[in-house]
Amino acid sequence: MLNPQLNSNGELQHLLALRDLPKDIILHILDTATSFVSLSDREVKKVPLLRGKSVFNLFFENSTRTRTTFEIAAKRLSADVINLNIAASSTSKGETLLDTVDNLTSMNADMFVVRHSQSGAPFLIAKHINDHKRHHLHVVNAGDGRHAHPTQGLLDMYTIRHYKKDFTNLKVAIVGDVVHSRVARSDIHALKTLGVPEIRTIGPATLLASGLSELGVRQFTNMEEGLKDVDVIIMLRVQNERINSALLPTTQEFFKSYGLTAERLALAKPDAIVMHPGPINRGVEIDSAVADGSQAVILSQVTFGIAVRMAVMSILAGN
Amino acid sequence: MLNPQLNSNGELQHLLALRDLPKDIILHILDTATSFVSLSDREVKKVPLLRGKSVFNLFFENSTRTRTTFEIAAKRLSADVINLNIAASSTSKGETLLDTVDNLTSMNADMFVVRHSQSGAPFLIAKHINDHKRHHLHVVNAGDGRHAHPTQGLLDMYTIRHYKKDFTNLKVAIVGDVVHSRVARSDIHALKTLGVPEIRTIGPATLLASGLSELGVRQFTNMEEGLKDVDVIIMLRVQNERINSALLPTTQEFFKSYGLTAERLALAKPDAIVMHPGPINRGVEIDSAVADGSQAVILSQVTFGIAVRMAVMSILAGN
Amino acid sequence: MLNPQLNSNGELQHLLALRDLPKDIILHILDTATSFVSLSDREVKKVPLLRGKSVFNLFFENSTRTRTTFEIAAKRLSADVINLNIAASSTSKGETLLDTVDNLTSMNADMFVVRHSQSGAPFLIAKHINDHKRHHLHVVNAGDGRHAHPTQGLLDMYTIRHYKKDFTNLKVAIVGDVVHSRVARSDIHALKTLGVPEIRTIGPATLLASGLSELGVRQFTNMEEGLKDVDVIIMLRVQNERINSALLPTTQEFFKSYGLTAERLALAKPDAIVMHPGPINRGVEIDSAVADGSQAVILSQVTFGIAVRMAVMSILAGN
Repeated sequence: MLNPQLNSNGELQHLLALRDLPKDIILHILDTATSFVSLSDREVKKVPLLRGKSVFNLFFENSTRTRTTFEIAAKRLSADVINLNIAASSTSKGETLLDTVDNLTSMNADMFVVRHSQSGAPFLIAKHINDHKRHHLHVVNAGDGRHAHPTQGLLDMYTIRHYKKDFTNLKVAIVGDVVHSRVARSDIHALKTLGVPEIRTIGPATLLASGLSELGVRQFTNMEEGLKDVDVIIMLRVQNERINSALLPTTQEFFKSYGLTAERLALAKPDAIVMHPGPINRGVEIDSAVADGSQAVILSQVTFGIAVRMAVMSILAGN
Repeated sequence: MLNPQLNSNGELQHLLALRDLPKDIILHILDTATSFVSLSDREVKKVPLLRGKSVFNLFFENSTRTRTTFEIAAKRLSADVINLNIAASSTSKGETLLDTVDNLTSMNADMFVVRHSQSGAPFLIAKHINDHKRHHLHVVNAGDGRHAHPTQGLLDMYTIRHYKKDFTNLKVAIVGDVVHSRVARSDIHALKTLGVPEIRTIGPATLLASGLSELGVRQFTNMEEGLKDVDVIIMLRVQNERINSALLPTTQEFFKSYGLTAERLALAKPDAIVMHPGPINRGVEIDSAVADGSQAVILSQVTFGIAVRMAVMSILAGN
Repeated sequence: MLNPQLNSNGELQHLLALRDLPKDIILHILDTATSFVSLSDREVKKVPLLRGKSVFNLFFENSTRTRTTFEIAAKRLSADVINLNIAASSTSKGETLLDTVDNLTSMNADMFVVRHSQSGAPFLIAKHINDHKRHHLHVVNAGDGRHAHPTQGLLDMYTIRHYKKDFTNLKVAIVGDVVHSRVARSDIHALKTLGVPEIRTIGPATLLASGLSELGVRQFTNMEEGLKDVDVIIMLRVQNERINSALLPTTQEFFKSYGLTAERLALAKPDAIVMHPGPINRGVEIDSAVADGSQAVILSQVTFGIAVRMAVMSILAGN
């Protein structure tokens, strides 16, 4: 079975998940992003790489923040951007997912940025496109269910490389609701591919993911033990809807056991960086002193995220 | 009484309805659209014809799909596009329709694309604009109540001409909820103007429109009889809100009597084409085998629809 | 304490309120707007002054009309515009206002247009930006609570100057719900700065603002007395939500006492102009005959409003 993300030349055709994405393609994306980071400081933050292309933001699940990052990235590449909040529109008229996609394809779309609450939806779309040999058309997964969030994973890798240079001597801890997190899943696959020797997950037993030990991931339910000597801490967002469920105690209890405080941060390496996909819950998974502290690189992640999305889009459009 | 769609030179000032639209203007739109169809295959799908113009999508009735087609068309013409979902805004503040229009006019609008649940609303706006001699301002009806949907009618004509070349020897059948359909109305007027000798409507007696026999339209309640030897089948969408009403039986019963199946399609000419304005209801008005079959041109309609809307907008802006 | 609106060179860094804004800066904005008014009549209504800049419309309070005017202004300056309806998004995920701002800043924003139901919110954002020395970043207040609506104030000044040339010999009356009106507040500060010798407010005693007499404003509860010999009448919009409250009688009673009719207008100077920030309530605060009459300049205000917003944005981006 061929990798549906790659075309027959082994180039990136769709960005669906970081699992199975070859290391050289990940590095090519990160390298390309570097040039876009410097572009963002310039007076005119625009390049004509996607001029005359139509990028459709297909958001079957609402996410203003993620949609905004893709919209900015596409506009800085000079694309025409069409935002479709599908939750409220045609699918509610009973149209199937693939009929919606076929319709937009017939409007001469060039790229679909797809967010969906169902794991696998972007894969279904990409497979449909590949089956119909529409090689000029590209899909970017902007988050599907619990499955993957590859651009978040890539911007996390960009951030780690920016601050730590080398992946092959790092200890990385991912903290929180690992089992429900597409970010955690994308990060773990990319960290493995890039040669990180020690990946840890930390969280209550109810929220640790099964199957990770096969990937060599060490799992901790004790925050203090898990943070010891790590170089990178990736905090996950606590989803409000899980609070007070059977899986998660109150926010106060969560913070007491797994909130990142200055004291706990001190257990990591002195130059450890603190990451978070945002939006942060101050006082739930992270203390304000840490979120605003010198080791936090959360806002740099946002900046790099635009550049990484520009890199992905420009590479796809060029293939 | 002058035709409010034409300016004093007899050129297109507004596109409101296909009834009373002269044949040469319809043909000019279709001819212009041809050049935009080829544009859509190019690397840079953009022309500067509406650069610096402001196109307002005034949607008093929600329709993501139709709004998207106009947004893409306007952006490919390099216009600035402003989407206004009026249902949720100023009119709810008690402002009248014409006050809203006057306000947007004062923002130096160049074109209004108007969708409204009330038949006649775009006419009211166009008349107001004409009365105030704002000759630089243009209205495109994007669907008003049960009345008209002229760009859909034009793209249907484009599609028929593309596949059948000559209108003057065709039998065309329109199937389904004719009485509530602005698409059917626009299609029938254009087919008449373009010289189609035989127009048929097919549907349950409760959904056939009165007044059509005066236009020479033949009405059928039996699907098999109506489809016999036709060249073109235009399926209408069954609106969910009508199902289980006094007018329409269940979807299963509708499909049993009026759903387009392969068996029924075989009654038409062997090279008959199957059209549908979308979004399709698989298994309600059309069988999946037909929707995905070789005679269906439904997705071509979508592609031609962008080109036809670009043609309308560029012709209006030039007049 | 330094004026947070000005940078260290005394130039406009943010536009937050007209109070404390130096007269030369107000006049510079009005003069700059003049050139944009003429631009709006041209074939291509676009200049490249903000090309490659990212303008974020941050609307924490819904306002399609105001958002539209800023969107048009920014697009005519060739900026990339991102509309964020924050009411429905990230802050509902528990993110703080300043965390939202920091995130968007990290996406290399150049300008925030902020609408907020809380008085002072744009100041908070501007202060945060100043504290972090992000001198390339600008805030425009698009209306905050009852506090200020400076671009509306500026377009009102533009309109008055356009029709009356000189501010220093004018009598200006502001009529209606003064106490809740950010428009009234912004107008009064600007009129004072520009040297208008007589400013009056007219309304029921429950809706007159305290503290205005210190500014030299004369307050009237009798409409006829208040309108006598004025040059400019600024009608305020009656907010629906206040009708039938303890503060305001029914709309009929309000109209009876404070509605602007032709008879009342005749009490003002013969060449008095009638202004309104829109959307108007016909038959509540203003009679249709007056709204559509020759002395009304309400639609000119809209046109000037686009030019004034373009002026503000281009001046900010240049500083």
